[in-house]
Amino acid sequence: MPASLDALVATHADLLERAQRAAHDRTYFSAYDESPSPRVYGEGAAEAGQHAYDALLGRPFDLPGHPDDGIPAGSEVSPYGPALGVTYPHAGVDALVEAARQGLPAWQATTPQVRASVAVEILGRINARSFEMAHAVMHTSGQAFVMAFQAGGPNAQDRGLEATIYALAEQERHATSTIWEKPQGKRPPLRMVKEFTPVGRGIALVVACNTFPTWNSYPGLFASLVTGNACVVKPHPGAVLPLAISVAVAREVLAEHGFDPNLVLLATEAEGELLAADLATHPAVGIIDFTGGPAFGTWLEEHCVSKQVYTEKAGVNQVLFESTDAYRAALANLAFTLSLYSGQMCTTTQTIYLPADGVRTDEGLRTPAEFAADLSTALDGLLGDDARAAGILGALVNDDVADRLAGQPKESVVVESRPVAVPEWPDARVRTPLVHLADPTDRPSWTAECFGPVSFLVPLPREQMTDVFEQVTREKGSLTAGVYSIDEAFIGGVRAAALRACVALSENLTGGVFVNQTAAFSDFHATGGNPAANASYADGQFVAGRFRVVGIRRHAPEPAAVEGR
Amino acid sequence: MPASLDALVATHADLLERAQRAAHDRTYFSAYDESPSPRVYGEGAAEAGQHAYDALLGRPFDLPGHPDDGIPAGSEVSPYGPALGVTYPHAGVDALVEAARQGLPAWQATTPQVRASVAVEILGRINARSFEMAHAVMHTSGQAFVMAFQAGGPNAQDRGLEATIYALAEQERHATSTIWEKPQGKRPPLRMVKEFTPVGRGIALVVACNTFPTWNSYPGLFASLVTGNACVVKPHPGAVLPLAISVAVAREVLAEHGFDPNLVLLATEAEGELLAADLATHPAVGIIDFTGGPAFGTWLEEHCVSKQVYTEKAGVNQVLFESTDAYRAALANLAFTLSLYSGQMCTTTQTIYLPADGVRTDEGLRTPAEFAADLSTALDGLLGDDARAAGILGALVNDDVADRLAGQPKESVVVESRPVAVPEWPDARVRTPLVHLADPTDRPSWTAECFGPVSFLVPLPREQMTDVFEQVTREKGSLTAGVYSIDEAFIGGVRAAALRACVALSENLTGGVFVNQTAAFSDFHATGGNPAANASYADGQFVAGRFRVVGIRRHAPEPAAVEGR
Repeated sequence: MPASLDALVATHADLLERAQRAAHDRTYFSAYDESPSPRVYGEGAAEAGQHAYDALLGRPFDLPGHPDDGIPAGSEVSPYGPALGVTYPHAGVDALVEAARQGLPAWQATTPQVRASVAVEILGRINARSFEMAHAVMHTSGQAFVMAFQAGGPNAQDRGLEATIYALAEQERHATSTIWEKPQGKRPPLRMVKEFTPVGRGIALVVACNTFPTWNSYPGLFASLVTGNACVVKPHPGAVLPLAISVAVAREVLAEHGFDPNLVLLATEAEGELLAADLATHPAVGIIDFTGGPAFGTWLEEHCVSKQVYTEKAGVNQVLFESTDAYRAALANLAFTLSLYSGQMCTTTQTIYLPADGVRTDEGLRTPAEFAADLSTALDGLLGDDARAAGILGALVNDDVADRLAGQPKESVVVESRPVAVPEWPDARVRTPLVHLADPTDRPSWTAECFGPVSFLVPLPREQMTDVFEQVTREKGSLTAGVYSIDEAFIGGVRAAALRACVALSENLTGGVFVNQTAAFSDFHATGGNPAANASYADGQFVAGRFRVVGIRRHAPEPAAVEGR
Repeated sequence: MPASLDALVATHADLLERAQRAAHDRTYFSAYDESPSPRVYGEGAAEAGQHAYDALLGRPFDLPGHPDDGIPAGSEVSPYGPALGVTYPHAGVDALVEAARQGLPAWQATTPQVRASVAVEILGRINARSFEMAHAVMHTSGQAFVMAFQAGGPNAQDRGLEATIYALAEQERHATSTIWEKPQGKRPPLRMVKEFTPVGRGIALVVACNTFPTWNSYPGLFASLVTGNACVVKPHPGAVLPLAISVAVAREVLAEHGFDPNLVLLATEAEGELLAADLATHPAVGIIDFTGGPAFGTWLEEHCVSKQVYTEKAGVNQVLFESTDAYRAALANLAFTLSLYSGQMCTTTQTIYLPADGVRTDEGLRTPAEFAADLSTALDGLLGDDARAAGILGALVNDDVADRLAGQPKESVVVESRPVAVPEWPDARVRTPLVHLADPTDRPSWTAECFGPVSFLVPLPREQMTDVFEQVTREKGSLTAGVYSIDEAFIGGVRAAALRACVALSENLTGGVFVNQTAAFSDFHATGGNPAANASYADGQFVAGRFRVVGIRRHAPEPAAVEGR
């Protein structure tokens, strides 16, 4: 191994080990600080990041050595208004596959430790560009700046590291060589020399989404890379820049350490192209990570059966609000969940079940209508100030979400949505959440995924709430679930249903933790066990299929005679 | 936990730990002795097993408490001649699913350690019935008695234990609970109590094959059981008895330890039923393990995309015989591989590439025709004595195999097949292997799977052998590969091709290890990385998708005040 790789492994060994321990213990761990404070990232880091971002705008993005057929690609427009004006290298499927292949032999021939260390080096350099990344994520996803910094920067980097350590541990699960010696009674033992080599599946495709371009793609990207695969990153056309930066850093680190930079490629779509489907079905592509809508996710699952397909789709996330002894705090918690990034997180609660005969609270029994009014008050309290509201809501990612919000039926609305002005960005598409008090018999209305800031209060007979929650999770899928109750028996029933339907559950959240947020190394994102997703960030299943172990064996040389034997 | 379960865990803890260590180290390990010697299994064990087997014949198989609709099922006929006359309980899909469901809550609520200990208890009791099992395997698969004892008994049990320890380790990969404490600068930290529960997918289906009813089904059966699933075992109609015995033992152990015996069910097919497909597509079935032909295996992969589907299909296993310095020993090794169980192992070599200009050997250069004659001599030496031949060849599992053998085109045959008489079983269907010297340009003839005792010598330009091997592996799939060469550069090229095409490789086998045999805890059976199989016995991927982890979290109570703080 070249000296530079030895040094790289030594540099990152401690972090990899600490992260592995945390992932086992499920305790709090973060390698990349989520505070955008100058005390953490240095004086001037924020300004430098802003300048770096500004310098990217209105020009071709530089990816030296990347395949490029010259067809223009790139038409991002910020949800805050301006067009980014960035164009990207474009290449067809065959050119991408051919380029990705070149570096594979050397990448597969090195050790898992080296690949993991390269991954950590990439993550560290991405981390150093977190302010620049924050602007790129903000102006593609619509996330407000601080959220874009955290979720698009350090939190995403932590998820990338998490995938890295799972990928490393899985490859280190078996000895790489052994002498196998089988006793044969009085005859000499059978002796074999065996070698075991983890081999990647070849080329991995990562199909990213518009809302969390980095957070939802780093797990697959780093898991595939560390298990010895080349990665083609196919961004959503609306959120290319954050991944272009990520790919640029990865290529720079690979090249510096003697690997082919084309092991990580950017597949930018030209107008009218269907690059994801064409790449996914190419025989050289062995792994697909997809984040996005259930329609294409299911298509991939059905059409790529001979490949490893990991899908994060969507579902209907539910909260059962049965009772509480901390009504104000519970409402505040829920209001924040519904408001954060305008409900555009795949983990945001959409449907809230209430006992039809009222919610028992420390402020008395509240009928569903009263609960709706109280939630409205909580939302007003949170979002009453436009500047603060904008910092929580961010902007709607695209016109589809705005149109869906505008097209909601009026009759059942109990909390109206309103536009929020952002002086700095006059064209920003910012709206507060809308809440329906749904007709419980109109089940299709509240069990269809409605992406964006729309949620449904659903009064149900108390004894039916848990069953409905379980059914909807099984049928539609859920990434998160919550329950509020002072009745341990009720909570016990919901827990059992959550286990059966395979969805993570948050109980009685009233403080600074929200049902739609997960922490890397501790909370699994999705279970992979209901229709919302077939995999989890991150566990053994997320990495184990990305490589296979090939055994090579031969007779061992005769052992040297041992004296006295 | 009841005291009896504590005791069970304590009893088997050491074995589980030793097996886990061996699986990591890949050293020789076996929990169940493959020697059918009275010194191992006790005086009289062979006779008792024979009597136990005889007592099963000609009557209904007793599975107390098993769903049974009274429709007769069971029509096994021994490849050695006699009909077994055993009938089995029969139940439809819904009855099986409903029965399997009942015990799931208690089975999922117990710990992975308990489930693994129950599995080891089952395996131990199956081991004690190894002689009885040997007869059952012999008279369903056609394996000769000693092989039936070993492969159907202890070797299968070892593979079951291997799956058990992978399933256990995967579930123990994360803490079951934690206190998560996130610093918040000067504010008090966020503190959450979190619990993590492995949850099985529900009902697992094991679709077994005719040739290795236990060896190929125990991995899936025990992996699914230990990860908290109920298992429906669907035997091949020609090989029910070995699995009926296995299921009976599992049910007995489950019931003794307070679990529902219907957690393990036998799905015997009635005349004209398509039980495997109907069970596989039932929504309650979440896992499918299949061993058998590529057609139905691929159908399952394509029609059960929302389930975990593990398939062991078939392929074209190849040996590259480039050169050797131990010609006699190499030929003997190869002859044994081709003869063992009449080539009816999914791991048997089918196609042998030879340099067209001759094989360099320590007995001089041998042309392909000379090599064929030498192989014929080696086969004659091995199989010249009928009694010895019968003990190696076993019987052809069914008439299809015999018909395919009889229908081979005559022109290219260089080693003829002949029937072998077995005085004890006059109707036994026993044949020696047939070998073609194939036309290298007639590629379809030697790249189509030809199940049974038929193989092909294919002369190729030396420099094409490795490429052809890689192509055929990628296209048709292979479970095993072998190479003979004294040229390290040639071997290096074959190794690289084996890694790329993802197939295990045996180099220069001349002694008592054969390319078609693998050892549990050391050799992976199949890689899961080429079309012959999508999974391996056993690794993390084989177990990780059989359960999912569900996290449940809530705010932690305030920590007790610490003095002096």
